[in-house]
Amino acid sequence: MLGFHKIPTVFEYEDFVSCGQSVPYVRLIGESWPMTKERSYFEATALKHQHSLSPKHVPEVYHFDRTMSLIGMRYIEPPHIILRRGLIAGIEYPLLAEHMAEFMANTLFYTSLLYLTTTQHKNAVAEFCANVEICRLTEQVVFSDPYKISEFNRWTSPYLDTDTEAVRNDNNLKLEVAELKFCEKTQALIHGDLHTSSVMVTQDSTQVIDPEFAFYGPMGFDIGAFLGNLFLAYFAQDGHADQGNDRKSYKVWITDTISGTWNLFHKKFTSLWDKHKEGPGEAFLYAIYNNVELWELVKQKYMTELFHDSLGFAAAKMIRRIVGVAHVEDFESITDLVKRADCERRALDFAKMLMKKRRNFNTITDVISAAQ
Amino acid sequence: MLGFHKIPTVFEYEDFVSCGQSVPYVRLIGESWPMTKERSYFEATALKHQHSLSPKHVPEVYHFDRTMSLIGMRYIEPPHIILRRGLIAGIEYPLLAEHMAEFMANTLFYTSLLYLTTTQHKNAVAEFCANVEICRLTEQVVFSDPYKISEFNRWTSPYLDTDTEAVRNDNNLKLEVAELKFCEKTQALIHGDLHTSSVMVTQDSTQVIDPEFAFYGPMGFDIGAFLGNLFLAYFAQDGHADQGNDRKSYKVWITDTISGTWNLFHKKFTSLWDKHKEGPGEAFLYAIYNNVELWELVKQKYMTELFHDSLGFAAAKMIRRIVGVAHVEDFESITDLVKRADCERRALDFAKMLMKKRRNFNTITDVISAAQ
Ligand SMILES: Nc1ncnc2c1ncn2[C@@H]1O[C@H](COP(=O)(O)OP(=O)(O)O)[C@@H](O)[C@H]1O
Ligand SMILES: Nc1ncnc2c1ncn2[C@@H]1O[C@H](COP(=O)(O)OP(=O)(O)O)[C@@H](O)[C@H]1O
Ligand SMILES: [Mg+2]
Ligand SMILES: [Mg+2]
Ligand SMILES: [Mg+2]
Ligand SMILES: [Mg+2]
Ligand SMILES: [Mg+2]
Repeated sequence: MLGFHKIPTVFEYEDFVSCGQSVPYVRLIGESWPMTKERSYFEATALKHQHSLSPKHVPEVYHFDRTMSLIGMRYIEPPHIILRRGLIAGIEYPLLAEHMAEFMANTLFYTSLLYLTTTQHKNAVAEFCANVEICRLTEQVVFSDPYKISEFNRWTSPYLDTDTEAVRNDNNLKLEVAELKFCEKTQALIHGDLHTSSVMVTQDSTQVIDPEFAFYGPMGFDIGAFLGNLFLAYFAQDGHADQGNDRKSYKVWITDTISGTWNLFHKKFTSLWDKHKEGPGEAFLYAIYNNVELWELVKQKYMTELFHDSLGFAAAKMIRRIVGVAHVEDFESITDLVKRADCERRALDFAKMLMKKRRNFNTITDVISAAQ
Repeated sequence: MLGFHKIPTVFEYEDFVSCGQSVPYVRLIGESWPMTKERSYFEATALKHQHSLSPKHVPEVYHFDRTMSLIGMRYIEPPHIILRRGLIAGIEYPLLAEHMAEFMANTLFYTSLLYLTTTQHKNAVAEFCANVEICRLTEQVVFSDPYKISEFNRWTSPYLDTDTEAVRNDNNLKLEVAELKFCEKTQALIHGDLHTSSVMVTQDSTQVIDPEFAFYGPMGFDIGAFLGNLFLAYFAQDGHADQGNDRKSYKVWITDTISGTWNLFHKKFTSLWDKHKEGPGEAFLYAIYNNVELWELVKQKYMTELFHDSLGFAAAKMIRRIVGVAHVEDFESITDLVKRADCERRALDFAKMLMKKRRNFNTITDVISAAQ
């Protein structure tokens, strides 16, 4: 949507609607795929909550009109641009990893059972269960359609025809996708669509928008969405290289940002956990885990599982952008189809490997080495 | 509660209340531990649903009065007795494994994403989230208190003093307990308290009652509760042996019932899944997994994980009955404390091993061998 921070005029209402915030169908497909307008309620609710948890990285909501499906929020002013655009243009954002790590650590930790009581958590889970149509959409376009024949799927044809078929016939891959259990894990309030077009950036500001897919789900889905989309940007760079800029150093910046995001997230998340170890959270009562060695083991086990979850979701998000319904501008803007297909194939092969072998990786550095 | 199947009289109302169905506190502890009366709403809702899914093994609900917290259900007539009593008396129930496997297969399969659409499932999850106080009670008495010092814990003292302390100091055990993630897995509508006092039996009838702890949680919690309580009965047998009956053949019947329950559950559950493979369930779309080899792999992986979950929960349920607040008559009825403590210690040691090594077991027969 387009934000505004004054009393909205009729023009702004129309502008807003034209941006699709409240259209009752899936914008990419059109009116043939209806979608609940109620998602703007969950977007507003999630935005408010995320702003309270990470105020520097989420715009404030000033007004929400449920009947109009209208959200009035802080205008994220120029020179902010959508991160994906910046990644295509080859612009470095030195604070991006730090900021995204902070956003994810705060929003995920404080909505999990590591911080909340069971009562608070279950109440919140129940509220967001009603955003089910949007979960179902995610399930379909991310976890189902790419692995079967679907009228909505598309890919860079004919170059990726056999690659696409191979995805549908890869039993191991499909087994591993099912293991992610997107719909049964009420771990934390996740953004639900944390790709690089849901982030607006300048050199020193990072703003996360558009949490209309928010619900209580697996934390790894957010972390994986962000890392997976950075990997997509990485694999697209060769398609954007030209005589003036071979993009080599930019690729290094992207991989540094990938490792920085995970490593800083790990640090911030576990720090929050340490800070609140005697707090209200009921998952690991301090009275039980109050032993230096055990406390470290608990964190290590939790973070390793979260890492592997995140890698699995990163892979799923990459695959679906290459063989599913919704593609990314990172690749779409490469006009030479042979070149584009080549970039996409490398991304796809990496993602398939990552999905299947995710539990073998111990550090993000190892993952990056495998991508190079 | 005491059931009735005629228009209730005032006496029956009082009788009902005196049975604790609707007392606003935890009966075992007293008024100092308040507990929501609303749990009878969830008990009635779960009973109705479970009856519709497994009519032969759940009494029909005729009437529910929310204000009075009153459930009128089919009277389970004599000679039905509480299963635990039968196990203590050494009575064999030839159809118990078959019936319990059927109850669990039907109630768990049909409320999971293997059968339900995401929309149906999330709506049901949301409804039962409100039974949170009861989840929290389970969390406390099953997963927390036994692993820390708590005023509620008790054990056969002084014989088990060091064993109890050892539980509190067992880091590996505590790590594994946390892995069970009781509160974050919305797999199916579980009974939530499926021990052997929630089952009434005769030689040819098995009736499951008292699902006041029902919510969307891990299936393994029900399976584990039932198997774990059969194991408790098994370890208590030596305490009930006397000159007239050494209980040896009865122990064989119990272990046969344990293996029969799991193996029949496995068979019935996977049959239901096969039967509905092209049904509405959204976890494994047939269009994706429609390949003979892959379909078998999917089921195998799912059932192995469920087996390991069930063993972990069985262990947790055993441990808490020996060192936690609520004990079982199986052991309590052994008046010789040395003998009782001896039975309890063997059960406890087995449960600790099971919790830590559960992923190493491939068959229920192997688990039973480890108990012998
Ligand atoms: N608060 C804001 N300030 C400035 N621009 C915004 C703001 N929110 C959204 N936008 C712009 O509107 C576009 C669409 O908004 P978004 O919330 O992502 O809607 P959609 O659900 O249609 O993707 C964004 O890509 C961004 O360019
Ligand atoms: N439908 C019924 N028919 C006959 N007896 C019943 C029935 N329901 C419960 N009972 C008896 O009442 C006792 C307590 O019922 P239960 O539902 O287990 O309540 P509580 O929550 O107090 O454990 C049972 O152990 C059983 O003996
Ligand atoms: Mg958007
Ligand atoms: Mg949006
Ligand atoms: Mg009972
Ligand atoms: Mg009851
Ligand atoms: Mg009860």
